[in-house]
Amino acid sequence: MPSTPRKILIIGGVAAGMKAASRLRRLDPEAKITVIERGVHLSYGACALPYVLSEEIEELDEVRKTANGTVRDETFFSMVKDVEVLTCCEALRIDRKNQQLEVQFLGGNQQQQLPYDALVLATGSSPLIPPFPGRDLAGVRALKDIEDAENIANHVASGAQAVIVGGGLIGLEMAEALKSRGMNVTLLEMQDQVLSGILDSDMAEHIHRELRNKGVNLRLQEPLQAICGKDGHVQQVTTEKASYPADLVIMALGVQPNIELAKEAGLDIGLSGAIAVNEQLQTSDPLIWAAGDCVESHHLLNKQPMHLPLGSTANKHGRIVADAICGRPTSFPGILGTLLVKVFGLNVGRTGLSAAQAQASGFDPVSILAPSPDRVHSMPEARPILTRLTIDRSSRKLLGAQIVGSGEVAKRIDVVATALSFGADIDQLAQVDLGYAPPFSAAMDPLHQAANALRNKLDGLAKSLSPLQLKKRLNTGEELLLLDVRSPEEYAEVRIPGTTLLPLGQLRAKVSELPKDKLIVPLCKISLRGYEAIRILKAAGFEKVAYLEGGVLGWPYELERN
Amino acid sequence: MPSTPRKILIIGGVAAGMKAASRLRRLDPEAKITVIERGVHLSYGACALPYVLSEEIEELDEVRKTANGTVRDETFFSMVKDVEVLTCCEALRIDRKNQQLEVQFLGGNQQQQLPYDALVLATGSSPLIPPFPGRDLAGVRALKDIEDAENIANHVASGAQAVIVGGGLIGLEMAEALKSRGMNVTLLEMQDQVLSGILDSDMAEHIHRELRNKGVNLRLQEPLQAICGKDGHVQQVTTEKASYPADLVIMALGVQPNIELAKEAGLDIGLSGAIAVNEQLQTSDPLIWAAGDCVESHHLLNKQPMHLPLGSTANKHGRIVADAICGRPTSFPGILGTLLVKVFGLNVGRTGLSAAQAQASGFDPVSILAPSPDRVHSMPEARPILTRLTIDRSSRKLLGAQIVGSGEVAKRIDVVATALSFGADIDQLAQVDLGYAPPFSAAMDPLHQAANALRNKLDGLAKSLSPLQLKKRLNTGEELLLLDVRSPEEYAEVRIPGTTLLPLGQLRAKVSELPKDKLIVPLCKISLRGYEAIRILKAAGFEKVAYLEGGVLGWPYELERN
Repeated sequence: MPSTPRKILIIGGVAAGMKAASRLRRLDPEAKITVIERGVHLSYGACALPYVLSEEIEELDEVRKTANGTVRDETFFSMVKDVEVLTCCEALRIDRKNQQLEVQFLGGNQQQQLPYDALVLATGSSPLIPPFPGRDLAGVRALKDIEDAENIANHVASGAQAVIVGGGLIGLEMAEALKSRGMNVTLLEMQDQVLSGILDSDMAEHIHRELRNKGVNLRLQEPLQAICGKDGHVQQVTTEKASYPADLVIMALGVQPNIELAKEAGLDIGLSGAIAVNEQLQTSDPLIWAAGDCVESHHLLNKQPMHLPLGSTANKHGRIVADAICGRPTSFPGILGTLLVKVFGLNVGRTGLSAAQAQASGFDPVSILAPSPDRVHSMPEARPILTRLTIDRSSRKLLGAQIVGSGEVAKRIDVVATALSFGADIDQLAQVDLGYAPPFSAAMDPLHQAANALRNKLDGLAKSLSPLQLKKRLNTGEELLLLDVRSPEEYAEVRIPGTTLLPLGQLRAKVSELPKDKLIVPLCKISLRGYEAIRILKAAGFEKVAYLEGGVLGWPYELERN
Repeated sequence: MPSTPRKILIIGGVAAGMKAASRLRRLDPEAKITVIERGVHLSYGACALPYVLSEEIEELDEVRKTANGTVRDETFFSMVKDVEVLTCCEALRIDRKNQQLEVQFLGGNQQQQLPYDALVLATGSSPLIPPFPGRDLAGVRALKDIEDAENIANHVASGAQAVIVGGGLIGLEMAEALKSRGMNVTLLEMQDQVLSGILDSDMAEHIHRELRNKGVNLRLQEPLQAICGKDGHVQQVTTEKASYPADLVIMALGVQPNIELAKEAGLDIGLSGAIAVNEQLQTSDPLIWAAGDCVESHHLLNKQPMHLPLGSTANKHGRIVADAICGRPTSFPGILGTLLVKVFGLNVGRTGLSAAQAQASGFDPVSILAPSPDRVHSMPEARPILTRLTIDRSSRKLLGAQIVGSGEVAKRIDVVATALSFGADIDQLAQVDLGYAPPFSAAMDPLHQAANALRNKLDGLAKSLSPLQLKKRLNTGEELLLLDVRSPEEYAEVRIPGTTLLPLGQLRAKVSELPKDKLIVPLCKISLRGYEAIRILKAAGFEKVAYLEGGVLGWPYELERN
């Protein structure tokens, strides 16, 4: 401990900044810890704001409270944590040579120089809003902080028109929130899928179906062109294809790290555009650390730099920065890009790399899509989930997972994230002693089912096609025999167009009637009987066989129903 | 592939046996595969039977069906899997020398000799029913198979008396099931806690509270003495302390492996009393494999042999045995003792070793108890869970977890099980990039909260006492200052007897009034403010301080309410 208490300045008082301040106080009772926050609100849970707007969370203040109901304001941090917080105070310039930070209170005109022994940049990120015409109209807003939520709430009205620009995490959460408030919701996405870069296209198709089923007007490949208004208020949004009436426009095009201070001070900026740090979250100046949404992360699997701001990472950063400043051994290993999002009745998650990302990183990816009930299928609460696992062919190491379904998704994502953290291979994943009881899981967990299906594929026991692969082959006009091996009753209810019914129980008897010159693609509800059919056909000497991964349940495209 | 199809016999047609048969067929289209099953039902989900009896699952047949509604009977296995199943057929004797199995159909008197090239013992386990007087009365039954469930169902009647003997997994599930059917339920447990050997006593206390709150007459330390009846039907159950009227008695004292055939054939039996196998599940006879509930497992962490029959293990075994018989590389690494159970409104799970088990295995265990909401606390669905993590002091390696609460437990248990499988230490667990979104989790997952609390304890930042440790010290008459640092409103609502109120916000100001000569134990609702108080007291020169792990929420003993 230094003889005079050290002075620690933290710029930014939301997640990483306040976490760092609290931990610093616990580690160093003597230090003078000051947080500079431009806004008025501290330490709030920004990720919960869509749920405030949906009114699931009844009071906006809830996102600023501790679990026991205390509002985390300046008084709280002063009384409980002995941390000084300057709100409405802007950090203007870092004077690295003299170890000083120039600040100014908003609305004031006096600059102050605050000296520091250690400086933490927790400057966060800001919504990315390209300079569209009309972006400054009332009723046009991104959702980033409490003021945004308050502003948006004033424009929410049942029966009114909302346009959401961008089908990322916040766009999807807001689609659900505004729909639940009775608004008519149009979602504009410039790509041909939502969650682009997060989910494979055939996984995203399930979200498209859910959005449409829930009444969202989903417009893919329709980038925003302009926003028009009258008397300063938004009225209409136009694209190349159409125009949409709008009382409220949510700009959800992603965020960018707030790096201006760091850049001006000459600190290194990473390839991702965020502040570059070492494993101790130290910037290129050894007296300056950075934490949270403004920081560049590295992916644990391909070591690529990336900017993926998340509250979970920010909280980890806060602790690490405090430990590092206090000279305690610590390091941040990197991220896996783990993401969860609820979209109406669908739970969606991913972690690690997609097959395309893995390929681009030099891996040789093999994937499987496997649907399962999320618990013992006879339990009335059982719901399906679709699991896509990706591994590296030669090392058999797990590379990632994407899971979508109305059943329990988050658990399986977290298990895969944990396995990925320890370099698990697919054979190890298949053996983990996961918990089993009918209300929670099945004797074979969906992850074990998927892992075994992938092992079968890898070991040459069963060729298979993903929905997207099959769709592409059908689109080329290739003649395939799509053999639905379910029961006549199941087939009558819902089926993939162009399929032929041959129930599995009759397959062994009728196998000689099948053609050997074209690819036979057996399929069933989930894929187990499809796989079974492959083994029967192979045993009968058929070489050109590949089952449809995911079956009817995993088929995200057109279905026929009676 | 041999020139003549090999003959594979499997004894037992429930989980491991049928799974092995199905996989064997897929791997070897030529083999003659025969399953010998003593009962009439195949491949059913025995773990779901309590949920049939609660009528959550509407039809008993559901537990015999595939996910798409086909009953898995002899015809199904013959038509779909080309596997011959002999039901009502008992395996009498293994003739290892001549590679023959002697079988006899029930009710028949002719023995048959079935030759085998490979034999699989999937003989399962049987309920342990000591020779109590009255155990054969009508209305006295263990729950193991479909016949048991049918029998028990006939004795279920609203308003009637049920006595459950044994507070293990099935005893607890049946307490809930029978209570939900309107029965008066008495649960007799000979130990001083339910789930003995599974949960620590202060974790089990939460289950005791839940059972009593839900109207179960829980009788601890009351072993069954006798069962009395009239006209062949049970009427009453007696213990040393009392007697209880009974129309239905569920014997839930655990199970024992069915090893008679193996033992008679001279195969090695393990220390746990189950059939000893190598990592390929091969018995001491290289032509005989064993799988499922009859097999001895080894704990991954302490390598101890144990008998813990579970459907999840049985399914893994089935695949491994099939692979091993077909000469494919495979092995079963061992188990972690992962268990989940739902007890009314509480979700309960454990994996790995408890502190006591770890100590007995030569580790130097350190534990923490940390309560957290299971997701962002402002979400209306948020519910608390209590997490106990145990690690080894010097290596910092994770040893186990126990989690209890009305919130989401299974996910965290599975994450810990996965981390344990890969030898994770506590610092690695704290860094895993788990999924975060308000409907599913918090920015700091409960596991991260617990891991960080444990790291603080390990690193000397905060001493703490578990509820049991504090209770024991109070019981010795030691004078402690139990300092409740919550708000007056929280304190008024519910508190631990003998505590003094001093809200955290006033602690810094009033710290000089506190005594330095006795141990001060700060506590709050969950432990975060208690930990905060420790840091304030330490900074003020107090040496004798230790916060109460788990706070009021984690306190399983008496509480005072206004």
